[in-house]
Amino acid sequence: MPENFADRLLGAIAAKKAPVTIGIDPVYARLPQALTGKSGLDREADLESSLDAILEFSRQVIRIVAPFVPAVKINSGFFERYLWEGIEGYYELIQEAAERDLIVIADAKRGDVGHTAEAYARAHLADPDLAGSDDMVGPDAVTVNGYLGLDALEPFVQVCREEGKGIFVLVRTSNPGAAEVQNAPCAEGVTVAEHMAGLVSKWGRQDGLVGQKGYSCVGAVVAPRDVEQARRIRQVLDASVLLVPGYGAQGLGPQEVAACFKPGGMGAIVNASRSVIYAYEQTAYRQRCGDNWEVCIEKACQYFVSQIREVVGMG
Amino acid sequence: MPENFADRLLGAIAAKKAPVTIGIDPVYARLPQALTGKSGLDREADLESSLDAILEFSRQVIRIVAPFVPAVKINSGFFERYLWEGIEGYYELIQEAAERDLIVIADAKRGDVGHTAEAYARAHLADPDLAGSDDMVGPDAVTVNGYLGLDALEPFVQVCREEGKGIFVLVRTSNPGAAEVQNAPCAEGVTVAEHMAGLVSKWGRQDGLVGQKGYSCVGAVVAPRDVEQARRIRQVLDASVLLVPGYGAQGLGPQEVAACFKPGGMGAIVNASRSVIYAYEQTAYRQRCGDNWEVCIEKACQYFVSQIREVVGMG
Repeated sequence: MPENFADRLLGAIAAKKAPVTIGIDPVYARLPQALTGKSGLDREADLESSLDAILEFSRQVIRIVAPFVPAVKINSGFFERYLWEGIEGYYELIQEAAERDLIVIADAKRGDVGHTAEAYARAHLADPDLAGSDDMVGPDAVTVNGYLGLDALEPFVQVCREEGKGIFVLVRTSNPGAAEVQNAPCAEGVTVAEHMAGLVSKWGRQDGLVGQKGYSCVGAVVAPRDVEQARRIRQVLDASVLLVPGYGAQGLGPQEVAACFKPGGMGAIVNASRSVIYAYEQTAYRQRCGDNWEVCIEKACQYFVSQIREVVGMG
Repeated sequence: MPENFADRLLGAIAAKKAPVTIGIDPVYARLPQALTGKSGLDREADLESSLDAILEFSRQVIRIVAPFVPAVKINSGFFERYLWEGIEGYYELIQEAAERDLIVIADAKRGDVGHTAEAYARAHLADPDLAGSDDMVGPDAVTVNGYLGLDALEPFVQVCREEGKGIFVLVRTSNPGAAEVQNAPCAEGVTVAEHMAGLVSKWGRQDGLVGQKGYSCVGAVVAPRDVEQARRIRQVLDASVLLVPGYGAQGLGPQEVAACFKPGGMGAIVNASRSVIYAYEQTAYRQRCGDNWEVCIEKACQYFVSQIREVVGMG
């Protein structure tokens, strides 16, 4: 039987003393000029040139952060934007990250029913099984949308069981408008997000899903806007790893992040995307590292790790 | 200014007297043996062979149903399962359907925030804008997931305005497990689905989104499980076209479907997928059409159209 995903993830976090993941969300307009100035990568309006640039950038980011973090989160949307050629690049990046022993979280936010859910679970979580894609691996985990009900997630859970993989169900997202849906009052005095947390918690405790460290391969995406909400969701999702986006660029503070962890700094992993991968846009890093965008990213990644270590009290 | 999507869709429905769409949800194991027996299409476990078969099947289905229906709904999941080569085929099918003057609804159920939502709106709704993809068109509309809040849908709405396209926000889905989320009691005595319907209704009435026929380019996916729920959602979403899945294979009956329409048979479009595209599996069609799977699909499509005409009282 393959190792439970939560055990693998928590093991990798412990090994690097870093409960963090870096989000690969490349947008051409924000790439460093040192890169987009290169011949072949300099035409934003050209599919091939633009895609080659974001792939080159993403590969470099993966290479730079790999020594410091246990995982990367690759957002499929930025690659889908480049049609099928972008998707080919997306899978290449998954291989690249896997080869560097990073845990890969596919941020695909898929959600559908029945046969479609099966197709998505094969496409975005399972290791490819068809001849012609033999030597590739799928991501280690994928983000999914539970609005359709958790039966829709069953094909993903099946892949988790068979291949030691994981899912993170969207519970509370970090955007300003999330509140009108997710904070709406729901059954028994809880919000919609907390109701979803309860369902995810129940699902995650099914036979065979909880690993030796006490956490399920069914995790949740939680970007609480206040400490109280973070505490409530943490309590409900007692056996789930929380994937916490929104730190840095999206404005989540250290208190909210701390409340997503259990005492001892366990049970959550915090993502930063733009604040790290575009660090060279920040004056502080430019002054320190000159125009070397790669060093800016490295320093920002190290700083992010040290910040989160401090927040969770991890030596 | 481009024609409003709802005006276009309702015009196409009126022209064919058929408020229906056929769902292209191909699964290799259910393709007709006459097709999977062909050399080159006969290896399910081979990516290229399997994909070629589902594309050949899908092209034929589009060709067969085009004279009878105004629209097809193409589900991206079944193509994503074949990695980037599948996505290339998916876009080819969109071109194929567009060339046959069908309105194409991309059933992609995407939902994300900020820059990612922009990327998804470009990938799954807008006409491709990058050199290297110039001669392609995007779908006419796309299904989206509103769990993240409707601000997350703004980039899609922007494309609707600029290119005369549409979105259908998931409100009530057809799977058995949907109830635990969507039927949960929510604010002011309504369910989560009805709360979502209220948000979608408000969003859909923004300046410039409602067309001359009184409907918005912001529609909703609604598969009510009972007549009362259908009536309530229909009332709340007064200015939205409802995309109604689940008729036939997924067990929605004529009463529930009828309640999704306004008097006079306006304001909704009903999807059938498996009951039409796999008609050759049904004894009734095989007895009538022999082993000709294409004729089976044609007859099932015509029968579906006649059923829905009857349900909505369309002459």
